[in-house]
Amino acid sequence: MTARFLALYETPTDPEAFDRHYRQIHIPLLRQLPELRRYTVSRDVAALHGAPCYLIAELEWDTMDELRAAFASREGRATAADAARLQELAPVRRMIFTAEEA
Amino acid sequence: MTARFLALYETPTDPEAFDRHYRQIHIPLLRQLPELRRYTVSRDVAALHGAPCYLIAELEWDTMDELRAAFASREGRATAADAARLQELAPVRRMIFTAEEA
Repeated sequence: MTARFLALYETPTDPEAFDRHYRQIHIPLLRQLPELRRYTVSRDVAALHGAPCYLIAELEWDTMDELRAAFASREGRATAADAARLQELAPVRRMIFTAEEA
Repeated sequence: MTARFLALYETPTDPEAFDRHYRQIHIPLLRQLPELRRYTVSRDVAALHGAPCYLIAELEWDTMDELRAAFASREGRATAADAARLQELAPVRRMIFTAEEA
């Protein structure tokens, strides 16, 4: 079992501005989150059913306690502040959950 | 880089019937997909922004070619047929993408 954070971005009104902000500002902030084990970003999303997301970001910690500590840290508060700016550029759903092997 | 399949289920009208079908029929089918490296299912999803998904399933292959071969296999066609029944129980978006380390 691992603890995951998932961000599902829909198509931005200005994809270039969104991409620039995400790549240049948001990724470097997220990479500093304490105890982060894995951080992946989608490329070439294709839908099999329903609409595709524009960008899917997934961050993984060993435990939910570590995830919560990361979000509560100084680095976590900085990423949250930047996330608030990002969501003005693209609709997004953000969620956390425990992922277990099926 | 890995190849991923992501299924985002919204709250079913009958969560018990959905859970039963997903656990007893869909999971065993997906687990038989050729070359599948990892298959995780969410538990206790909590939203940080926007609405939370009801269930998040993620399957991972080493390459997009392997993912496509798995979906085209006999086992893949059986899971697709079952997925068509599942989506009568809950709204779902399904997508595939390349996941790269950020």
